[in-house]
Amino acid sequence: MSDNHPKTVREIRINPIVPTESVLVATARGMRPRKAEERVARDDRVHVETCPFCRGNEDKTPPAIAHWPSEKDWEIRMVENLYPVLGSDPGDGNVNFGLQQAIEGYGRHEVMIDHHHHGIRLHEMSEAHIAMLFGAYRERMEQLYASDNRLKYVLVFKNYGLAAGGSIPHTHSQIIATPVVPQNVHDEVENSHRHHQKYGQCIFCTLIDEALSYEATIYDRKSGEIKRKIDVGQYVIERSEHFVAIKPFASRYEWEVHILPLEHAPDFLQVTPELLADFAGVLKRTMARLDAVLEGAQYNYFIHSQPHGESFADCGKSYHWHLEICPRTTIPTGFELGSGLFVSTISPEDAAAKLRDVRLEL
Amino acid sequence: MSDNHPKTVREIRINPIVPTESVLVATARGMRPRKAEERVARDDRVHVETCPFCRGNEDKTPPAIAHWPSEKDWEIRMVENLYPVLGSDPGDGNVNFGLQQAIEGYGRHEVMIDHHHHGIRLHEMSEAHIAMLFGAYRERMEQLYASDNRLKYVLVFKNYGLAAGGSIPHTHSQIIATPVVPQNVHDEVENSHRHHQKYGQCIFCTLIDEALSYEATIYDRKSGEIKRKIDVGQYVIERSEHFVAIKPFASRYEWEVHILPLEHAPDFLQVTPELLADFAGVLKRTMARLDAVLEGAQYNYFIHSQPHGESFADCGKSYHWHLEICPRTTIPTGFELGSGLFVSTISPEDAAAKLRDVRLEL
Repeated sequence: MSDNHPKTVREIRINPIVPTESVLVATARGMRPRKAEERVARDDRVHVETCPFCRGNEDKTPPAIAHWPSEKDWEIRMVENLYPVLGSDPGDGNVNFGLQQAIEGYGRHEVMIDHHHHGIRLHEMSEAHIAMLFGAYRERMEQLYASDNRLKYVLVFKNYGLAAGGSIPHTHSQIIATPVVPQNVHDEVENSHRHHQKYGQCIFCTLIDEALSYEATIYDRKSGEIKRKIDVGQYVIERSEHFVAIKPFASRYEWEVHILPLEHAPDFLQVTPELLADFAGVLKRTMARLDAVLEGAQYNYFIHSQPHGESFADCGKSYHWHLEICPRTTIPTGFELGSGLFVSTISPEDAAAKLRDVRLEL
Repeated sequence: MSDNHPKTVREIRINPIVPTESVLVATARGMRPRKAEERVARDDRVHVETCPFCRGNEDKTPPAIAHWPSEKDWEIRMVENLYPVLGSDPGDGNVNFGLQQAIEGYGRHEVMIDHHHHGIRLHEMSEAHIAMLFGAYRERMEQLYASDNRLKYVLVFKNYGLAAGGSIPHTHSQIIATPVVPQNVHDEVENSHRHHQKYGQCIFCTLIDEALSYEATIYDRKSGEIKRKIDVGQYVIERSEHFVAIKPFASRYEWEVHILPLEHAPDFLQVTPELLADFAGVLKRTMARLDAVLEGAQYNYFIHSQPHGESFADCGKSYHWHLEICPRTTIPTGFELGSGLFVSTISPEDAAAKLRDVRLEL
């Protein structure tokens, strides 16, 4: 175990899928004295009279789009966003002048009330509920893609906590359908496609292989001393029959964890209820670990999946859907803004060990 | 003026230099009820007994690297960073295994105490002081490049306020020298070089031209109605003999402003004291405008300049140094993280008008 003991790491780690999303790991900086982080008082109320997302206040939201399992006694409820960032009303069209280009903000913006319980945290939801929630995401994504071929991508995401930009306390997610494939998805899809063309392998499958079945010792060329040891499973946080949760070797957010299907699967829309039941357990346990280590995780998560539309039809073998969970524990500074390089003061190895060490009581 | 009256804008604006840094302008979202932003209590103390950056406490910092104008009665003081993210001590070297790559975190990390006055805001400093500060940046950048050819880029940046990641209240900047050219700089340099190869023009010069001397009316193709008017100087916040401050048509941060030299100049190291004296006035007035509109700006700024080193020697005609100022008024959410697209709820036209409307009392 002594080889795994956290030591000072100071290196720039390149994200193998999107090299532009690299990270500077600088653990000595973690020794810097910090004021105790402001703990966010937990709002664990079941029902809040004034909350438009609570049961009984359905008339305070825009009309519902759908309910799960049913309108009466809904557990999950989907409504239009009162202040959408993209809309279906006719706009100015595209505008171009000089070097400037603007694409009309056509699209959809909807809100998923994740649970009728106002203050419930994700890992406190039942596995059946989490599976229903991701089933609801899947259903709505499918409907949106089918409804309008101007919608090129449907992004599902969740903001939990003020540090993650979550301004409404009742637990909820959002679905935004965009008129172009967003840059981050485009980069992943394009780079993994190029990797597949070169090597005939899905890069995500290779990374899963690496996480599950790779052990290495790297020696110093001159002295012969051990420079680094990579243990089997060192980056694995959770694993089930069909899914794995990985702390990436290179990731921008210190506690970032990705959940991927073990079997190659490009499109979240193809996920089955059986797979989602299995996925729900991995997500629940992963969130419980993050919440325990961070003493109340504030986080974003989002689903990345193969874009629909002809231009991406040939990416089925190269892309691999996944959920990215990004706990928000630091504020990017002028260094991040100016360089594009995020700083992580906890080594991913240490973060993974801490997450695995949590004793779950679920 | 009625054409300039803010109306609802909802469009994706592509950054012409780095298309991956695009922005979704969605002003209707600005109507969303927000809790009053937490105003940060202003710390305007001149001297704080316990502050290691205040005069008289010089023994509480690592040894000084330099002082301006002199060690005795210094106004600006440069010290090593106690908790550097990059260092010159020998590390593990580069490490590669499987798909993973890590570059040794070799470099420098230094702190510039911008003023002996603990709580002074940038626009409260004299123009002479601001010119001295940017002269100090220039001097140290030059020394670092000359001292060690493993240093491929020297990034100067400032974090002001907690929302901008500024954890130390005494006004200060940082200088980080990196072993690779950071991604954001690389993208700008590469894309502007390609633009120059194609069109024989510096794209930054063209954007300045556009901001200073371009007027346009865009009509609807069918109805013939006016869709949009672009007025001359609409995006210009400040202008002096040699510099211009521009609110870009597309920029990630709502109040982001860039200051560029009017005459083509790739390398900040070539800036003269005369130019810096002129620059200081533009920066001071720009910061005063931002501070007035935001009622206390929390911001990052950083200098982007031509990288030194052979690989970038041919970018002198295509690159154009500038200062980017990014006030931090919002927290990126899961949408930004998942899509790469930042959301701005204020239109750049409206932001520019508000900044220009400030009555300066300097």
